[in-house]
Amino acid sequence: MEIRMAVTKTPKYAVSDSGDSVEIVERPKGGLTAILADGQGSGTFARITSNLVVSKAASLISEGARDGAVARAVHDYLYAIKNGKVSSTLTIISVDLDTKSIVVSRNSNCPVIIKKRNDIKILDEYVESIGFHKLMKPSITEFALAEDLVIVSFSDGILSAGKKTGLMMTVENIVDLVRESCPEEIDSLAETILESAIKMDKGKPSDDMTVVTVSICPYYDQKKIRRMRVSLPF
Amino acid sequence: MEIRMAVTKTPKYAVSDSGDSVEIVERPKGGLTAILADGQGSGTFARITSNLVVSKAASLISEGARDGAVARAVHDYLYAIKNGKVSSTLTIISVDLDTKSIVVSRNSNCPVIIKKRNDIKILDEYVESIGFHKLMKPSITEFALAEDLVIVSFSDGILSAGKKTGLMMTVENIVDLVRESCPEEIDSLAETILESAIKMDKGKPSDDMTVVTVSICPYYDQKKIRRMRVSLPF
Repeated sequence: MEIRMAVTKTPKYAVSDSGDSVEIVERPKGGLTAILADGQGSGTFARITSNLVVSKAASLISEGARDGAVARAVHDYLYAIKNGKVSSTLTIISVDLDTKSIVVSRNSNCPVIIKKRNDIKILDEYVESIGFHKLMKPSITEFALAEDLVIVSFSDGILSAGKKTGLMMTVENIVDLVRESCPEEIDSLAETILESAIKMDKGKPSDDMTVVTVSICPYYDQKKIRRMRVSLPF
Repeated sequence: MEIRMAVTKTPKYAVSDSGDSVEIVERPKGGLTAILADGQGSGTFARITSNLVVSKAASLISEGARDGAVARAVHDYLYAIKNGKVSSTLTIISVDLDTKSIVVSRNSNCPVIIKKRNDIKILDEYVESIGFHKLMKPSITEFALAEDLVIVSFSDGILSAGKKTGLMMTVENIVDLVRESCPEEIDSLAETILESAIKMDKGKPSDDMTVVTVSICPYYDQKKIRRMRVSLPF
C-alpha cells in the first residue's frame, strides 16, 4: 500500500503572508503525519503563530510523542508563551505504520471528512482552538489503516469562501467533491477544493485558504520509492 | 519566481528501513530548507540516527537559527547523546527569502552540484561527517538567489552504485544529467538520477539511495499557490 498526502494553499488576497501553516513529517516508528494550523488573525502575526504551533508539533511528532500528547503540549506551550491571549487551530492527521492506524486529532472549527470506500464520515464535534483556555482537550478519532481511504482537512478560509459574494461554500459542497474522488487522485482533489473556494470568492480569497488531503492506495511496484515535491511561489 | 524541491529515495535492497532521512521545512522568515542525513550503517539503527539528526535540524531551522549554527548544534547534540561513537552525514540546502540567498551547508562525503544557467559548479571540498570528532565545522557556500538555478544533493548510495557490478556511477555521470536538466523539471531529474543508480546496481540497490533536487524557476500565475505532495509506499 502507499500513503499519499497533498497540500494546496494560498494566502488571503493582496496579503503576502498566509496565517495558515502546514508541515508533513515522518514518524520515527514509520508513517507520516500532516499538521495544519490556522493562527488567529491574518498576515505576518498569524503566520508567526501558526508557524510556532506547527513546528512545535512537528518536533514532538519526530521525537515519537503520541498525537494526543502533542496536541496538549502544543496548547500548553502556546498558552504559556502568549499568556492565553492568542489562539490557533490545530489539526493532526497521522498514518501510523507502527500501530497500523489512522489518528485524527482536531482543535479546529472546521470538520475533517473521511471517505472509506463509499462511506462518508464527517468529524465535526465541537472543540475549542488551542491557546485560549487553560484546559483544552483535542477531539481524537482513531481507526484501522485500510486501503481505499481518503481524508480531507482544510482551514476556515475554505469554509467561509463566498460569504461576501453570496455564493457560500458549504460542507456539503466539499463532501460532494470528496465523494467523487479516488485515493489515487488526492492531488487533484486538493486542487479542486481550493479552486472552488477561490471561485466563490470571485478569484480574490477573502481569507487564507489551505486544503490537506491524505489517502491510502494500492501500490504495485516492487521497488519501494518514496517521493516528496514542494513548490513555493514568491 | 518559484522555489521547487523534489526528493526521491529508496532503501537498500531487501532492507525495509532506509538509513537516509530527508525533511523539507518552511523557514520562519520565508523560504524553504531541505535537510538530508545519511546515518552510519544501514537498517533501523541508521534510520534512528538520521531521523534524530534531521528532526533536530528541522526543529532548529523552524525556530529561525541560521544554517551554520544548526549544523554545529546538531553535531554537538549527536556527539553528546552518542558519546562520539555514531556518525552521520548532514547536508542543508536553504532558499532564504529573507536574505535573498541560497545557503548550502555540507558535512558529507558526497558533493553538491549547482547549475546556474549553463555553468556547473561542484561543491566537493573535503569535510568531516558529524558526530565523531569533538570539533567539527560545516563547509558553507552562500550565493545570491537567482532564476534558472538547479541544485542537486544525494547520499553515498548513489555514488557507490555499480561498485559490485563494475558499472560504477561517477560524479561526471550525475553532472551530465544535471547539465541536461532545466529548473522546471527537477522532479524528473531526481527520478532519472535514482533510476540510473538503481540500474547500475542491476535493480537491487546495494545501499540506501536518496536524491534531493532544488530549483528556482519563473512563475507566471497571478495567484500564489503553494503545493506539497508526499508519497510513501509500505
